[in-house]
This record gives sequence, structure tokens and C-alpha cells, in this order.
Amino acid sequence: MECGLLFSGGKDSSLAALLLEEFYDVTLVTAHVGVTDDWEHAREAAESLGFAFEAIELDGDVADEAVEVMREDGFPRAGIQQVHEAALEAVAADYDVVADGTRRDDRVPTVSRAVAQSLEDRHGVDYVAPLSGFGRGAVDRLVEENLVVESGPSEAIPKGDYETELRARIRQRWGESVVDEVFPDHEQTRVVGRAGPDA
Amino acid sequence: MECGLLFSGGKDSSLAALLLEEFYDVTLVTAHVGVTDDWEHAREAAESLGFAFEAIELDGDVADEAVEVMREDGFPRAGIQQVHEAALEAVAADYDVVADGTRRDDRVPTVSRAVAQSLEDRHGVDYVAPLSGFGRGAVDRLVEENLVVESGPSEAIPKGDYETELRARIRQRWGESVVDEVFPDHEQTRVVGRAGPDA
Repeated sequence: MECGLLFSGGKDSSLAALLLEEFYDVTLVTAHVGVTDDWEHAREAAESLGFAFEAIELDGDVADEAVEVMREDGFPRAGIQQVHEAALEAVAADYDVVADGTRRDDRVPTVSRAVAQSLEDRHGVDYVAPLSGFGRGAVDRLVEENLVVESGPSEAIPKGDYETELRARIRQRWGESVVDEVFPDHEQTRVVGRAGPDA
Repeated sequence: MECGLLFSGGKDSSLAALLLEEFYDVTLVTAHVGVTDDWEHAREAAESLGFAFEAIELDGDVADEAVEVMREDGFPRAGIQQVHEAALEAVAADYDVVADGTRRDDRVPTVSRAVAQSLEDRHGVDYVAPLSGFGRGAVDRLVEENLVVESGPSEAIPKGDYETELRARIRQRWGESVVDEVFPDHEQTRVVGRAGPDA
């Protein structure tokens, strides 16, 4: 079965790919909104892991609706959730199985059982979240054993996630001060290869 | 890392084992309560899949408290949940990682995020539920491709799950009519091997 796994180049979606690769024909899919070329960092990460890769451009309205919600909220969560759900819909149109790297303790994006069931019923696909039964500690230990990762502040680590593009879109529309309002500082990671004897 | 995966010989815990085998040293662990030898069916299934196996006998009080709850409720759920949590505690004492085969849409047993976190904090282990991000359809399709399964009514398929022993304990204490009151008829499955070219 053809599985499209939403992929940012980060450790969670990379580990999800390793968990699924024995069971599905996995393509790593990066959704972008046409604002920057940062999805190419995800392509590099996908290549370093040896997976097929696809970039999907979401409708421009998705980004604009999301950044408006984010500016209004003063937090990124709801907007990122909207983009994630739009990305799941896009993948569901092209694959038998839709997957993502959401963890047990992720706050955003999250995919509730109801959203998952709705996606499955409307598109005739399976939605699978292979890390949703793993907490942060378990994920960190598996990442350490199976991936090579570099980490640093969000702005220093080029990734292919929605955040990078949504930051850019906010900067375009309202300037850097609104970016700082919406996005608190936090550490990002990017995967640069597999660890261990098979690497 | 040494992972003890709670194992009944059924398709869910078998598929969970296949998902984890690339990442941990997996031992399939069947918890029993000393009422019957049905855990030996789980050992046979574990052998047919090529995994290490361990049987753990839980304290006799666990079974007696569970069947009393089940008789009072007229349903098996709460009692089975109690035994499952006692089994997780027992595995957590001996392994680095505790796992089970609970699915996204399982009603019992379920392990809430709070129960998982508590288990992890008290024992210094990771709790992982590799199928908790998979629905019934996804599990069924993966089972069909990866396992050989026989199915039939609960009483005809010998398995090593708690239900078999708890039925026996209820029969011992209160007779067959109480077994029928507590357990509605449903289909059971038992794994008898791996499918596909590697089988």
C-alpha cells in the first residue's frame, strides 16, 4: 500500500518513517504554501534517509487564513492545526494510507479520533499516526539510536515545516514584530541522516 | 533496550511486536493469574513468530478482585482493565520499555496518557503503544499482509488472554450462567504465524 507521510525533516516525522517503512511503500510528503522554498530542506532530509519524496503546494488561502487566525490568537497553535488538516486532506487524495509524526504528548498539531475517522471515511484511506503511542522520552531515545540530528533555535535550523513558511508570510504581511508576538522561542531539530551500523 | 510487550497471541499484540522488533529487543510477555494453562497458547504463538517469551503470574488477588468487579458490573470491561494495569506494572518492574497492543479504537483495555505517564515516572521506563495511532481497518489490512490468523467464536479459539482465565475463574466461583451474563458472544482471533515471502 502507498503511504504518504507528512514530513518536515524533523525527528518525529523521520522516526515515524522508520517505523512504517517495513509495512508500506512510504513517500515523505512535505506540504508547503508557496511562500518560501524551505520545503527543499525537507527534501534533503528525505534523501539523506533514503525515502521517496513529494512536495505538495496547498492553496494560498490556507496560509492566509492560518496567519490571520495566528495573529488574532497571538499564538501559533490553531493556525498550524488548520494547515496540518489541509495537508492531511491533500495527501488523502493521492495515497492509500495517510500518516504523520504526531506524538502522544504533542499539543499541536493533534489529530483527534473523530478527525481521523472522518478523513478515513471521506477518502477511503487509512490514517495512521505511528508515534501517537510514544511519549517524548521514548521518542528521544529512539531518535538517538536511529537518527543523526542537529539542533538549535528555530530560526537557525532550516526545516521544511509549516512554521518556517507561516513565519515568512506573517513577516511579509505585518513585519517581524508580529512574528515575535506569535512564535515564542523554542528549540528546533533537523534530521541529517541515519545512525548506527546501517548508516 | 529490553522491551516487554504484553502478548495474548491475538493479532493486535502480534502486529505490535512486528512494529517494534526493529527498534527494541522484544520479549513477548503473557500475564496470567494461575487459574488455567491457557498462557501456553500465547507461548506457541510467540514461538511461531520467532520472539522470546515470558509468562508472568500475577498475584491471585488481582483475578479475584477483577471477577468480583465483573460480576457486579455484568460487563467485563472494568475487570479486564484492572488486570491489564496490574500486568503493565509487573512488566515495568523487569524491562526498560513496556508495550502493549492497544489500538486507537479499543474500548478495553485502554491506557490513558495519565496512566502511561504515571507508569513511566514511577518505574523509570518508557511505555509505548505502537498501535494506538492505528484504527481497526489499518490494523486488519496490516494483519492480512503480515500474519496468518485463525478466527472463530471466543470459546473455540484457544488464546492466552486474560479473558480465558477470568471466564474460568468466574465459572469456578459462580458457574457457567454468570460467565454468559458477563461475556457477550464475540469473535476471537489467534495468530499462527507470519505471512508473506519471509514466512
